[in-house]
Amino acid sequence: MIRGNAIAIELKGDGRQAVFLELAAAIVTEIERGRLKPGDPLPGTRGLARSLGLNRNTVDAAYHELLMQGWLVAEPSRGTFVAHDLPELSAAAGRGRRAVPVETRATTPRPTINFCDGSPDPRLLPSADLARAFRRALAAPAFLAAGSYGDVRGSPALRQALAGYLGDERGLVISADEVLVTRGSQMALFLAASAALEPGQTIAVEVPGYPLAWAAFRAAGARIVGIPVDGGGLDIGRLSELALSEPGLKAVYATPHHQYPTTVTLGAGRRLKLMEIARRHGLTVIEDDYDHEYRFDGRPVLPLAARADQELRVVYVGSLSKLLAPGIRVGYAVASGALLQRMADRREAIDRQGDQPLEQALAALIEDGTMRRHARKARRIYAERRACLAGLLTEALGDKVSFTVPAGGLALWLRLEQGLSAESWAGKAAALGLSVMPGIRFALDPANPPEAFRVGFGSLNATELKHAVELLASACP
Amino acid sequence: MIRGNAIAIELKGDGRQAVFLELAAAIVTEIERGRLKPGDPLPGTRGLARSLGLNRNTVDAAYHELLMQGWLVAEPSRGTFVAHDLPELSAAAGRGRRAVPVETRATTPRPTINFCDGSPDPRLLPSADLARAFRRALAAPAFLAAGSYGDVRGSPALRQALAGYLGDERGLVISADEVLVTRGSQMALFLAASAALEPGQTIAVEVPGYPLAWAAFRAAGARIVGIPVDGGGLDIGRLSELALSEPGLKAVYATPHHQYPTTVTLGAGRRLKLMEIARRHGLTVIEDDYDHEYRFDGRPVLPLAARADQELRVVYVGSLSKLLAPGIRVGYAVASGALLQRMADRREAIDRQGDQPLEQALAALIEDGTMRRHARKARRIYAERRACLAGLLTEALGDKVSFTVPAGGLALWLRLEQGLSAESWAGKAAALGLSVMPGIRFALDPANPPEAFRVGFGSLNATELKHAVELLASACP
Repeated sequence: MIRGNAIAIELKGDGRQAVFLELAAAIVTEIERGRLKPGDPLPGTRGLARSLGLNRNTVDAAYHELLMQGWLVAEPSRGTFVAHDLPELSAAAGRGRRAVPVETRATTPRPTINFCDGSPDPRLLPSADLARAFRRALAAPAFLAAGSYGDVRGSPALRQALAGYLGDERGLVISADEVLVTRGSQMALFLAASAALEPGQTIAVEVPGYPLAWAAFRAAGARIVGIPVDGGGLDIGRLSELALSEPGLKAVYATPHHQYPTTVTLGAGRRLKLMEIARRHGLTVIEDDYDHEYRFDGRPVLPLAARADQELRVVYVGSLSKLLAPGIRVGYAVASGALLQRMADRREAIDRQGDQPLEQALAALIEDGTMRRHARKARRIYAERRACLAGLLTEALGDKVSFTVPAGGLALWLRLEQGLSAESWAGKAAALGLSVMPGIRFALDPANPPEAFRVGFGSLNATELKHAVELLASACP
Repeated sequence: MIRGNAIAIELKGDGRQAVFLELAAAIVTEIERGRLKPGDPLPGTRGLARSLGLNRNTVDAAYHELLMQGWLVAEPSRGTFVAHDLPELSAAAGRGRRAVPVETRATTPRPTINFCDGSPDPRLLPSADLARAFRRALAAPAFLAAGSYGDVRGSPALRQALAGYLGDERGLVISADEVLVTRGSQMALFLAASAALEPGQTIAVEVPGYPLAWAAFRAAGARIVGIPVDGGGLDIGRLSELALSEPGLKAVYATPHHQYPTTVTLGAGRRLKLMEIARRHGLTVIEDDYDHEYRFDGRPVLPLAARADQELRVVYVGSLSKLLAPGIRVGYAVASGALLQRMADRREAIDRQGDQPLEQALAALIEDGTMRRHARKARRIYAERRACLAGLLTEALGDKVSFTVPAGGLALWLRLEQGLSAESWAGKAAALGLSVMPGIRFALDPANPPEAFRVGFGSLNATELKHAVELLASACP
């Protein structure tokens, strides 16, 4: 037992759980035992870290987790305190076993837990920094300049910042002139298809894949043909056959970094072949790198776009929404010359321009390093959540589902054991308040859906993940 | 002479100029005469208003004008002061004549003055309120809710607030379910055409008219046919002929409140006929009421949409961008049932959803009355600017241009006297740093452009308007 300023913290440190989660659980135990009472101050993170021999970041992360769970409250310039409105402490919780906090507000109606898709957690957003940057942007001369509609390609400051960021982080040697700021990646996908294809021409897409991308391509008038995805990603042989047999094929849509929905990374051999096919047949590659930052194992793989040249046309699509929060809608496309100009022209017709103050604020957060710090912090937390979910699933459902822990991204792809129907399982889960997406949601042909789930761990903390897995297990047919 | 706290203010009060402008000019005179020195405090607005027998709002408006012009600076919680970095005071300014401040920073490169289009002035934005509302929105449970993508139709709070606002202010008896929040009116126009027309069908538009609307309709696959506009607005007889001769005609786009670009309000008789034609031929009316709030004379005219029913399909399009700033991109469409649903489906494919925190913040500003207060204040200032520009133009260019002072909107339509070319005049103005839009920019057929300018007064204060008119006069061929 190690003493913090005023509380007794017991850490097993056996490596079975992340240290910050263990610390968080220990603090909850102190609260449950009544040794920390509502309104009591917590020790400062620096002091507690020193006395426990931990990195201060670990203590920060534990406090943050408990703030998000509502056990603690932070009061600006005063410190961190035990919350006043704590849920009634159940006798079952926290005693005798490792105290991972559990949901105990049984009286309030239980909201639907969203176990879907791989969204980021808006609670991690550096919202004070963003709000400050937004306020500053509203006072900036560029915004106040009389009667100014902005550049249809997006705020020059944000395009500049993105060009630098993508160069530093992803090996894209580009100038601001090759960047188009869009509304999330969704608009970038629509504009890319509008610019790369004439109505009636064909785009090849991954199956299972991303239905909203298909909707964007259809809205642009494109015809869609599916290429199967296997354990190594896009089936390149089938793409090659299609390129030979289908003269209208002009583009291919791919998610090589973390295939959506199956999470697999396209290997080096298939990447080279994909680029070779695109060159040979003059296909535009629409590369959707929607959550590049979230790479936990090894280094991120460089985008195909880093190899683009005169003979290889790539529209590279990314998003700050996945980095920040789904409700903050800023994405971007990178492409060269005429292709980007066509996208910009089309964008003006459907949306004139973006929100200047928001784009300006995000540019400031990239330039001052806030965005990189946030990405580092989020990556650490999401890696913990990935491990947490993988552990929970193996324990609770190891005989019902199988999965490969992905090298990156915010979701797992759970393949169901023979005889289980993802759709009926998802229906039962929904009745219990758990929203989970069965394979049919990612199928081009609904008659033949993969029996699988895509479950997201990004937006759920340890407590919520535990609860989600419990519900999923309860719903198992 | 009436004494304020510490300064002598002389107001003629002869009604030839708005009182707030006269007060502003008097303060500038005090600064130019050296009786108010850089860094000197100004009296509080309440005390000065009392001692001058003025409404406090008038003093506020005068201070605001001078803050915007850079004569004064405001320091939060300290007060208002004479600016330290004043332009060198020219001997010509302010002595012997009514001191309307003039641009005297001759050493800094003169930026292009944008005399175009009728944009609002972002300097009037209640930016502290907006920034605060944005900060709160980032902390709101709806935003922080785990993994939430929002409603494709926009934030429920904003749709609710808009439904109430449009009911109170414009006689639209609607529910939130009939509101779709979009990116400015541009996206609403694109979605409306996508939902109302099949590709290849025809939409009738006003000529001269709004080219970005035409771009939106073309992007939706529509064919465009122009209907002339005369001094009473859209030529209804020509629309009726087209409806009879063109079976593909399925929609009509109109700006009945303040026709773009000619500013005329469509009269009651033509409104009734327009609605009758739409009913008889099953045309969807896309009614663009882009700056409804800016009605200076008489009451605003109720939108056509207030008369929509089962037999009259209207997509009503509005914008908060015109109310706030061009760079804040929130518009909306009002339509019923299936039509709105088709627009929402299409919107998801090109843009998924809006920015939640921004939409939430704007909803709060509508609900707490900030938006209405801002509209009132802006309307007062823009009415002053309209009168100011009309006076300046009559004085400087009365023999070269003619115009009707419009009942509303943020622009004047200047018809040039015989023999003058708007395009060559605009070219000469551009060389002097004045951006002005000649009639050809609003023509469907560039071979036959109206010899006219659309000049905006919303984004320019009295000083800037004076400068703009001087430049326009200097450029006159």
